[in-house]
Order: sequence, then structure tokens, then C-alpha cells
Amino acid sequence: MSLVVVGTVAFDAIETPFGKTDKILGGAATFIGLAAGKLNVDAKIVSVVGGDFPQEYLDLLNQNGVDTTGIKIIPEGKTFFWAGRYHNDMNTRDTLATELNVLADFNPVVPESYKDCTFLMLGNLTPQIQKSVIEQLPVKPKLIVMDTMNFWMNSAWDDLIEVIGMVDVLTINDEEARQLSGEYSLVRAARKIIAMGPKYLVIKKGEHGAFLFNEESVFFAPALPLEEVFDPTGAGDTFAGGFIGFLARTGDISFDNMKRAIIYGSAMASFTVEKFGTEGLQALNNGDLNTRIRQFSSMVQFDIDLD
Amino acid sequence: MSLVVVGTVAFDAIETPFGKTDKILGGAATFIGLAAGKLNVDAKIVSVVGGDFPQEYLDLLNQNGVDTTGIKIIPEGKTFFWAGRYHNDMNTRDTLATELNVLADFNPVVPESYKDCTFLMLGNLTPQIQKSVIEQLPVKPKLIVMDTMNFWMNSAWDDLIEVIGMVDVLTINDEEARQLSGEYSLVRAARKIIAMGPKYLVIKKGEHGAFLFNEESVFFAPALPLEEVFDPTGAGDTFAGGFIGFLARTGDISFDNMKRAIIYGSAMASFTVEKFGTEGLQALNNGDLNTRIRQFSSMVQFDIDLD
Repeated sequence: MSLVVVGTVAFDAIETPFGKTDKILGGAATFIGLAAGKLNVDAKIVSVVGGDFPQEYLDLLNQNGVDTTGIKIIPEGKTFFWAGRYHNDMNTRDTLATELNVLADFNPVVPESYKDCTFLMLGNLTPQIQKSVIEQLPVKPKLIVMDTMNFWMNSAWDDLIEVIGMVDVLTINDEEARQLSGEYSLVRAARKIIAMGPKYLVIKKGEHGAFLFNEESVFFAPALPLEEVFDPTGAGDTFAGGFIGFLARTGDISFDNMKRAIIYGSAMASFTVEKFGTEGLQALNNGDLNTRIRQFSSMVQFDIDLD
Repeated sequence: MSLVVVGTVAFDAIETPFGKTDKILGGAATFIGLAAGKLNVDAKIVSVVGGDFPQEYLDLLNQNGVDTTGIKIIPEGKTFFWAGRYHNDMNTRDTLATELNVLADFNPVVPESYKDCTFLMLGNLTPQIQKSVIEQLPVKPKLIVMDTMNFWMNSAWDDLIEVIGMVDVLTINDEEARQLSGEYSLVRAARKIIAMGPKYLVIKKGEHGAFLFNEESVFFAPALPLEEVFDPTGAGDTFAGGFIGFLARTGDISFDNMKRAIIYGSAMASFTVEKFGTEGLQALNNGDLNTRIRQFSSMVQFDIDLD
């Protein structure tokens, strides 16, 4: 099954209590594409970069099965840049710089070769861009997954609500679910958000795991407790890439298979946070991934005979 | 199997965004004893109350199978009283009043009829009192479970560490595990705390669930997402009572059975938070409990065939 990903391809500069980086490869579509690639699903990225974006990064994406035909290069422009510093708890961070650069005027163009895609991942971006990509596809994909964040709730509410109404799966964090629904209880929040359009809702809780809701059911996967969280950047996008990558690989969008997809996404994200940037994900092999999935399984399994 | 519980029997006055109570029945040993009683395990409480403690509360405990022989009544004294106000998020609270009263000079005396107990639950109290109860038992129980809190880490460190070295299972929350161990990662924190003596460590994360660690393994149970959290008071103690109650009922202290005990504790705590004080727990019946345990099971179950 073919997967199209729209999202940022960017430079990140990251500071954590353990060290700091210069400008390294980052961006939502990068992590999503690499994660899908690790599951042998070729992701086709729609994005934009500047003339400063190194060919080696494009090569790296291509070598991981990522199609970069849809990454527009604007030679006279600069690539989107984000710099942040994580606090000691690794759960909170300060944004030190956000330079939109070429992203400011980004009008996505979906290449002809992308248009028969069956899975579409809308990484966190302006709702208008997300909508434009949906509208350029002649046939609605089998599954559209959308990520977003509180920033768009504050600045582009009407657009956001419109796009949420067009997708099958929405992924947001717990605070965003509360803001979007106006409900503190996640059960109530999920019910309201599902009534806005998406059949499925993933609520990400970072180190506390993730929920998957549909109208009748709820599934929960913890985050694997780790010795060391080194750099959380890209964890949410890796999770999304593993999630939709697994669904695209299997072609099965049942609730039971989405549970498995959540476990794959969680397991893959646990590798991302162990290294800077995309390093952990790049080094990931199948054996390590399977080991971690078995750890998830043994961590939550129990059997109770009820009389 | 017989269960002795040492802990507070108290008056609570609670304010939440949903309402407030006058002085109602509270205290760690109360919730623990009632939870164990719901699992048909007769808990024998060691505690102290004042002359103001109503006979009807003692009757209520007795009717739920709780032995109150070890609750010393000091006619001229007043019962321990706690008042608190929960914030809108229901996760944080202000203490409005703590009147130790008869608890200030409490010297626990374990009745002869309690001394052959096989399970001992040390509810959150001064470490010295917890230690005194252990030392009054002529034979070490099959399992000693200890609850404690950050207050004792700040005020009675040496005593606390000594008692932690005498127990089999320690239950604390995530912030307390970090404070006790000096480690942010819960994996590392657990390793250090287990090296202090307890073979098992339960780390409670409130609405985010609970971990069970031993030297080699880790188990995680989410908290059931609820429509409404009405009053969190007693949730941790209900959890502890369900946990040790299930172990005492089955007499099996294997890691696999402790997983089941965690699920029972979590399920029972979910009823406590739905009403004020002990109300939710009092109304709980076997059918409702089994339904909720099945919900836990379906919420975390998945199957993945790895190649």
C-alpha cells in the first residue's frame, strides 16, 4: 500500500541536559517517513526546503525508501528551522527559535506519481495546507491520519475544525484533547472529538503512553519505561509514522490492527528518544524492534479467571 | 489468610469542584480494610480514634468484615482530622487542615488475636509506628506491604529507610520514587529502591496508572479512564487494600499473581473516585467489579505475531 506524508522537513538545534547539537535533520515528515521506511513502507513526502538543505539529507531519506519527489526545493530560500531546550524533566521545553522561512509561503503540490496513494498522513502543519493536500487527491485514500497541535487551536480554529471533519484518525496529546473538546475527562473529550468527524482518536500522553478511542472501544498502550530519555524531539512523529506505517504495510484498518499499530508506533518512538534527532531511528533494526515489542507485550499481559 | 492493617482511621472534610462534605469517615486503614472486605478477606485494623468517633462507623467497618479490636478508643481525645480542597484538574489539592489529635501520641498495640497474621499492610504513617507493628509480631508474616509518602522522606529519613529495609513490597507515587532514589528515570529509581530491601516496588501514577517492579521484571496497569472523577480521596489506599486483599485471598505471592492484584487494586480504586469518601467502595458489588476487570483486560490486550 502506498503512503503519502505531508509535513515539515527541517533543521533542528536541540539542547538537553545531556548535550546539544548544531543544526541537524528534523521535521515531522522526516521522522514519519523514516519510521514508515523501517517497516518497509515507502513513504512519499510532500514538503518544502531551502537551497541550504544538504543533498546528503535527501540521499539519506531516499536510502530509507522515502520518495522525495514531492519535496520542493526553493534555491533562494532557507529551510524551516526550530531550536529548543529541554528542561531537566525532559517533559517540558523552551522554544529558542522558530524560523518558518520557506514554510511561510508553502503551497503544497502533490506530484502525479503520488495521487493513487491509499494512506495519507497529515503531519502537524497549517490546517489549510493539510486540507489542500486532501483536495488534490482524486480518490479519497483508504485512511487519512492527521496530527495537529494547540497552536492551530489558538490561531486557526475554523480551518482546523474543517480538516478534522475530513479525516479518519486524529492524533493529539491529552492537553490538546482537553482544549479541543472543552472536557477534562478524556473519555468525554474523546466522545466529543469523534463527533466532530474522525472515527478514531489517538490521545498521546508522552511518557504516560497513548489511548486509542473509537465510538465503542478504548485501547491503551503504555510508553516503555526507559533507563534514559536523551532527546524527546520527534517522538510523536515517529509514533505516527510507526502507526500509519504498520497500517499501510498490513492494509488492515480494523480496530484490532490499529491496536497493533499503536504498539509499533510506541516501540519505534522509544528508540527515537534514546538518541539525538533521527539517530536512534536510523540505527534501528528489525531484531531490536521485535525485542521491544515483546517487552511491551510482557509488560501489560495478565490473566484473570473471573468466577 | 489473615490480614492486619495498621493505618489511620479518621474524619475527612473534602471540597471538590462538584461539592463538599462535612466530616465523613476517612483514613488509610478504613479504605484498605473496606477494600479487603469487598474481596472477602477480614482485615484486622490497628489504629486509634477519639471519643468523638461514632459507634456507627465502627459498626460499618464490622459489617464489612473488618475487625476493630485493635482500634484503641481514647474517650477524652479527638479523632485525626484532615480537610482538603481539590483543584479543577482533580490531580492537585490544598490541605486546609491537619489535626493529628490522638494520632500525635499513638503507640500501637497489636492485640493477641492479630499476632498470627500472614499478611501485613502498613498504611501511610510515621515509620516508627510501622516498625513497632512489625516488631510486635512473633513470626514474620508471609508478606509485608508498606505505603509511605514524601512527608516522611523530609522529616524522618533514617527511620523510613530502616522500615523500607524490613518490608517485601513498597508502594509510593512516581514523584516519591524519584525523591527516594535521586533518579528521574523510573527504571533506575526502581533498581535503587529494590536495592534498599523490598523485593517488589509499586509506583503509583494516579490517573496514569501503576507500575510493578521486581529485580527482573516490570508490569504496568493503566488507570481506567472515567467519565467523571468525583473525589480522589482514598484512591491510593483502596488500591493498596485491593492489592493486598487479593494476595491474601489467594495466598499466592508470585509475580504473576501480583499482576492480578494490581488489576484488582486499580479496578477497586476506580469505584472510590466516583463518589465522596468511602461511598463508592461501600456500594461496590462483585458483578460491578468483574465488569470493570474485564474492561481493564480488553483495554490493554493485543496480539502481535512477530516473524
